[in-house]
Amino acid sequence: MFAPVDEQLEVLRRGTVEIVPEDELTAKLERSRQADRPLVVKQGFDPTRPDLHIGHAVSLYKLRDFQRLGHRVVFLIGDFTARVGDPSGQSEMRPVLTEEEIAANLLTYKEQVERILDPKLTEVRRNSEWLAPLNLADVLGITSLYTVARMLERDDFAQRHADGSPISMAEFMYPMMQGYDSVALESDVELGGTDQRFNLLLARTLQERSGQEPQVCMIMPLLRGTDGDRKMSKSYDNYVGLTMEPDEMFGRTMSIPDELLEEWLSLASSARDAELNKQLRQAGENPLETKRWLAEDLVRRYHDDAAADRARDAFDRVHREREVPEDVTTCVLRADDDTGTLWIGYVLTRSDLASSTSEAARLLAQGAVRVDRRPVTDGDLQLAPGTYIIQKGKRAFVRLDLRSAGGS
Amino acid sequence: MFAPVDEQLEVLRRGTVEIVPEDELTAKLERSRQADRPLVVKQGFDPTRPDLHIGHAVSLYKLRDFQRLGHRVVFLIGDFTARVGDPSGQSEMRPVLTEEEIAANLLTYKEQVERILDPKLTEVRRNSEWLAPLNLADVLGITSLYTVARMLERDDFAQRHADGSPISMAEFMYPMMQGYDSVALESDVELGGTDQRFNLLLARTLQERSGQEPQVCMIMPLLRGTDGDRKMSKSYDNYVGLTMEPDEMFGRTMSIPDELLEEWLSLASSARDAELNKQLRQAGENPLETKRWLAEDLVRRYHDDAAADRARDAFDRVHREREVPEDVTTCVLRADDDTGTLWIGYVLTRSDLASSTSEAARLLAQGAVRVDRRPVTDGDLQLAPGTYIIQKGKRAFVRLDLRSAGGS
Repeated sequence: MFAPVDEQLEVLRRGTVEIVPEDELTAKLERSRQADRPLVVKQGFDPTRPDLHIGHAVSLYKLRDFQRLGHRVVFLIGDFTARVGDPSGQSEMRPVLTEEEIAANLLTYKEQVERILDPKLTEVRRNSEWLAPLNLADVLGITSLYTVARMLERDDFAQRHADGSPISMAEFMYPMMQGYDSVALESDVELGGTDQRFNLLLARTLQERSGQEPQVCMIMPLLRGTDGDRKMSKSYDNYVGLTMEPDEMFGRTMSIPDELLEEWLSLASSARDAELNKQLRQAGENPLETKRWLAEDLVRRYHDDAAADRARDAFDRVHREREVPEDVTTCVLRADDDTGTLWIGYVLTRSDLASSTSEAARLLAQGAVRVDRRPVTDGDLQLAPGTYIIQKGKRAFVRLDLRSAGGS
Repeated sequence: MFAPVDEQLEVLRRGTVEIVPEDELTAKLERSRQADRPLVVKQGFDPTRPDLHIGHAVSLYKLRDFQRLGHRVVFLIGDFTARVGDPSGQSEMRPVLTEEEIAANLLTYKEQVERILDPKLTEVRRNSEWLAPLNLADVLGITSLYTVARMLERDDFAQRHADGSPISMAEFMYPMMQGYDSVALESDVELGGTDQRFNLLLARTLQERSGQEPQVCMIMPLLRGTDGDRKMSKSYDNYVGLTMEPDEMFGRTMSIPDELLEEWLSLASSARDAELNKQLRQAGENPLETKRWLAEDLVRRYHDDAAADRARDAFDRVHREREVPEDVTTCVLRADDDTGTLWIGYVLTRSDLASSTSEAARLLAQGAVRVDRRPVTDGDLQLAPGTYIIQKGKRAFVRLDLRSAGGS
């Protein structure tokens, strides 16, 4: 038995940018409740980018809301479109993947998604099931429903057309094929980011023409990445991955600009209601402390309490107390026979802090190297035997055990 | 053995608007001659419009030139595109035909085409052979070679896009599919009217990408129709059909405006060189006489000498000597018992010159009716018994034998 429609709507509305059209969602929920039949809720994912991050999680948690309300979630892998390259919202064509690469990427999805969705209630489908068998006559039937002008209404197409930058005809095909996914799945609701709004709405025409009730489009906010500038994406390396190691997850979260705190607290943290208000208030007064809370919250969410505690303590040691981490690697080297010392450039390469002596020279020139906490910029420095803490940047440490020349 | 390239080029160039690029045609002819291998020359025809007219004949005669020079002509029926509607160069979508309708239309083509082309040297192909089996991945491979901006370069697309009148996405597909025809046939040369220039050139990209040498595009002039205004087309009813009856062919040719004479003499008549110059000169001095020569020439070309003579004599009787044609129908009627006469409106309907008395009244009011050569506009005219020649418009005649009332 489904919850009353008002209760469902209250949960489902939370955190969305827009529900188009909302009255149709109400009507669908009412009929679902009367007929005791779950809605089919679809979201498409790109198998060329199998690293899910906390930006994806915004809508994955919304899919979980649907699951908890008893509805049927379809996690749709756009494997067919990936085989031919999906340039949606990108000015460059994405790489075309082989069947083997896609299959490998799919395996990694499952582990990530199950950190949020209930595996037993999640149906995973691949759009090659219904797109691969389409023939030219089918394709012409689909394309005949759309006009060139309508396709050019999509913001990024309009922009690129105005700029005179090329749009491949295949790119025009992609949103129509995505619409056909909705027909094949008979989806009631589709989720997508604000950059997917056009594609989501396009499916409605095709569903209506196929005698189906058109889907409701649930537009979800896009989380900005750690740079505070562009949307979170692996290709910009401004992301926090769902399966990232606790220390990395913690460190990346701590690196975000203060202006991003409100957005991340609202969209990516577990905070709700009173807790959220408290953190939002604190963000203005003590952004560093709020970031620590957020970083801990994220590690707790995607790992566990113990991992969150460890990541926080390790971070604090390095960044707050400026101590050397406990688990620092020790590197044993021997001084040069002639001089009885060892050149710093050689130390950096042998300890793997630099890949070459020219990189070592560059690091030294940039002031990125510290020996026992003191910055070293002298590229000719010779170290006498003894033990040292060699540090590169903020987080890479090596304990150096430099032994006398000729010793055993 | 093929004729020297210069000789071939002289024949092939004649009457074309443009050969793009001409140096590639020269190179292809040279290699064809060296290898003793014929060129593959393709032209597409629309099976939804199976009535060929003297406008089509302009390029059919060019195909015959290729045949006579020893090359291989492919008469390509766009049956697949017809099944899904081919809107090329039309602001309205064409009707979608069933397989049965297309098959029926194909039969009528053969008879018409063989008035010009050598049946033994003409290969008839249907593009459903290679287009029907294409799947979505194939289609995306083709579309990825073209940009939206390039498709919008086509004049009619550009115009409609600028006017805000809708262009179906399926219309954008059509020229790309036509290009694929060239790949499937490995065509060396494609012929088409000036309105096909864009489509013909588009095929070159696809051929190159498929590892073929791109085709040479031979752009042929479009013949204007009998209205002197629009291009010749059955849908405008401004055409002279290849299999039209001699009298109709002659009459339609006589109806063209004087300004069209130069174009028709050059493109549609059999006149060449000295004869052509003579007729072109005469057109300015005595256009009516020149039209008679042209009309006779066309009937001779598509029927025979005897038919041309008969059509000319019949036309002359009606239009020049204003005589009643020999084979006029006789209609026997009886006068009204009360008046001893018969109302002209009744005469016109009973003799099938009008379908109703209201049409008869309209014809009379328009001055379209003559009795014994005198125009009759009196809608109440009563005819006394006797014989009359009743004439509607310029060419419809009935001999009326009006007998006395009550007689046997």
